[in-house]
Amino acid sequence: MKSIFAEIITIGDEILLGQITDTNSQWMSASLAAIGVRVVHRTAVGDDAQHIVQALRLAEQRADVILITGGLGPTKDDITKKTLAEYFGDTLLLNPQAEADLAALMASRGRTLNELTRLQSMLPSRVIYVKNPVGTAPAMWFAEHGKVFVSMPGVPYEMKQIMNTGVLPKLKETFQLPAIQHKIVRTIAYAESAIAQKIETWEDALPPYLKLAYLPSAGAVKLRLTGTGADAQVLETEMQAQIDALLPLLEQHAYAADDVEIEEAVGRLLKQKGLTLAAAESCTGGQFATMITNVAGSSSYFKGSFVCYVTELKSSVLGIKPEVIQAHGVVSEQVVKEMAENARRLAQTDIGVACTGIAGPATPHDEAPVGTIWIAYADQHRTITKKLQLTAERGLNRHLTAMSMLNLIRLSV
Amino acid sequence: MKSIFAEIITIGDEILLGQITDTNSQWMSASLAAIGVRVVHRTAVGDDAQHIVQALRLAEQRADVILITGGLGPTKDDITKKTLAEYFGDTLLLNPQAEADLAALMASRGRTLNELTRLQSMLPSRVIYVKNPVGTAPAMWFAEHGKVFVSMPGVPYEMKQIMNTGVLPKLKETFQLPAIQHKIVRTIAYAESAIAQKIETWEDALPPYLKLAYLPSAGAVKLRLTGTGADAQVLETEMQAQIDALLPLLEQHAYAADDVEIEEAVGRLLKQKGLTLAAAESCTGGQFATMITNVAGSSSYFKGSFVCYVTELKSSVLGIKPEVIQAHGVVSEQVVKEMAENARRLAQTDIGVACTGIAGPATPHDEAPVGTIWIAYADQHRTITKKLQLTAERGLNRHLTAMSMLNLIRLSV
Repeated sequence: MKSIFAEIITIGDEILLGQITDTNSQWMSASLAAIGVRVVHRTAVGDDAQHIVQALRLAEQRADVILITGGLGPTKDDITKKTLAEYFGDTLLLNPQAEADLAALMASRGRTLNELTRLQSMLPSRVIYVKNPVGTAPAMWFAEHGKVFVSMPGVPYEMKQIMNTGVLPKLKETFQLPAIQHKIVRTIAYAESAIAQKIETWEDALPPYLKLAYLPSAGAVKLRLTGTGADAQVLETEMQAQIDALLPLLEQHAYAADDVEIEEAVGRLLKQKGLTLAAAESCTGGQFATMITNVAGSSSYFKGSFVCYVTELKSSVLGIKPEVIQAHGVVSEQVVKEMAENARRLAQTDIGVACTGIAGPATPHDEAPVGTIWIAYADQHRTITKKLQLTAERGLNRHLTAMSMLNLIRLSV
Repeated sequence: MKSIFAEIITIGDEILLGQITDTNSQWMSASLAAIGVRVVHRTAVGDDAQHIVQALRLAEQRADVILITGGLGPTKDDITKKTLAEYFGDTLLLNPQAEADLAALMASRGRTLNELTRLQSMLPSRVIYVKNPVGTAPAMWFAEHGKVFVSMPGVPYEMKQIMNTGVLPKLKETFQLPAIQHKIVRTIAYAESAIAQKIETWEDALPPYLKLAYLPSAGAVKLRLTGTGADAQVLETEMQAQIDALLPLLEQHAYAADDVEIEEAVGRLLKQKGLTLAAAESCTGGQFATMITNVAGSSSYFKGSFVCYVTELKSSVLGIKPEVIQAHGVVSEQVVKEMAENARRLAQTDIGVACTGIAGPATPHDEAPVGTIWIAYADQHRTITKKLQLTAERGLNRHLTAMSMLNLIRLSV
């Protein structure tokens, strides 16, 4: 089976000026790898016709598939579409399907189609139109020079939607790709190096066509086992056996054997047990509630959160006596315990969780050092408290605290 | 003054496979832009001599300075140094200064120099050695083919140290560089195409050495004016005059003439006016509170948020009569109005804001269509309500709603 190679071309001065990080290229590389297409080259050029054309010419010599992002806005500095049309000796025509989809999109946002936006529906005449479900710039699939070129907007969430709904499926139709299987195990509160030591024997015994990748993020490590072969079914069976051997080694740190976020795993658990949840948040400032409600349908188990960012509201809203706060300090086991219990009582839920701590960067007056955070879980039988000693970085501390609260629920229900 | 152009070449399979994000290129681009060196091209290639050589050949045709990262480890798969030596027809020699610095570094870490590590001190004979203050792989400055090539390790922390202590100062010595200035205007709730139409005359009249870029993100567009010239002071004065002419055209959509997020701009405003704020959130699920508390010190104006994700809590916590919800529906002007007013009263703040709506993907029973969201602002004098008709995408709707609430505060206080 012939290997299919891809090249990614990113267009935009803002990338070259370093004003934004190019996260698209990584996401695209990983998505292509997942269907058996190997990225051999990545290029970033400015909004400059000559540089774009040179990049295209070189790319089509190296790759079978050339994916291009950026430069599709309606404004003067966006020249990608015009440059591609010229490169392929094509002319721009109004594409009726593109115009219809665009009009529908604008209508759904209660806006009317102005002339500049309407220009987005002018596409090269030979192009295969690929719908952008969430934006005004359509994607364009070119079968030219014996290669496939796809041009997409650079806005990450638009590009991802287009790749998932249009481009990746169409690539699978167009090319004969090897069987590639992935198995994901999601872990939490377990350092990458600790995992590596724990599973070393298992990992060393993997056959050459099975590869393990450690994908760490704040507070969690995703393990991805990738298998390549001719027969998908054989691969599937063998990989499942490997995962079954891996999971016990990870003990309670493995929270899912598929690719779901911790908030989704916790949501499943609560749904399955028919339990409801409420929160009382201080230092996370609503981030716990934001995370758990990332999941569509979370209202069936999550009722709400009391974000009491200032001490005063912990008394007036959550009903924690000022004397208690006086005596123990607002960052204390006693306060977090009452926060969780009172959130549960006020919202009339089965479970209440809470946090109070110093996210940083500064620590108010004589409070605990930055990164000191108490979390609690309360149900009808008991209240569990936990002290976290996190980092010096505010944003990271808020995120890690919300994750720890989710994990505490998972381990306690 | 001749413009100095740079190209960045990133070497490493792990980048192309999408296993790690290339953050180096952005940092390097921004650092170079700041000293007046313009990055015109970025390339990522694998650990493959042929691809590296092709990238070098093209780069030296396009750029005056070629910055290369990656592939400098002591192991077999790292071939950058060997490939560069061959490319320039040079041979590797032990560099005494490099060896001395390496020995000192190892000593400072209480380690002795093994043979594999010592190989790091073998450099091309004509290279200008650039010290790596924090790692074992030295950087190499080549003055070859009438251009400057610099090879650095890809570890971000090491690359940044080398750039700051060695490469950037040396570039300033080597080239006569122009002054480069940036001015940022942040806008909100104003489509890129609408802005372009509004400011077309102003934009068309810009002199060639002032360039405007549109940097759109969900719900907001950042405008960046970049100026290049001989005299920084002259440039500064002229650019400020251009910004002063631009701002009135953008009317109330321009929320900041510097590079701050909307939550920071709103925070400044509340602080400056000495006003306090509380929220009642439904469909945003805490995202408004999360955004406003992204800002360190926000507790001086933000007291908290009542995240009432289920209807029941809108009554039991916010005290909205079930009859009102029955009569108007939970996604209604009347309900959002009372949510904002009651949040303000319960938290005893100057301002209360609220939202209720259908984030999607599904719409519960006979409620409004997905993307229908009401927001409200209440202070002691008045309550303002606004109906939003957003998208079909849940995550985007939550984000746009929180941004709209922030913007409503900004326009109403």
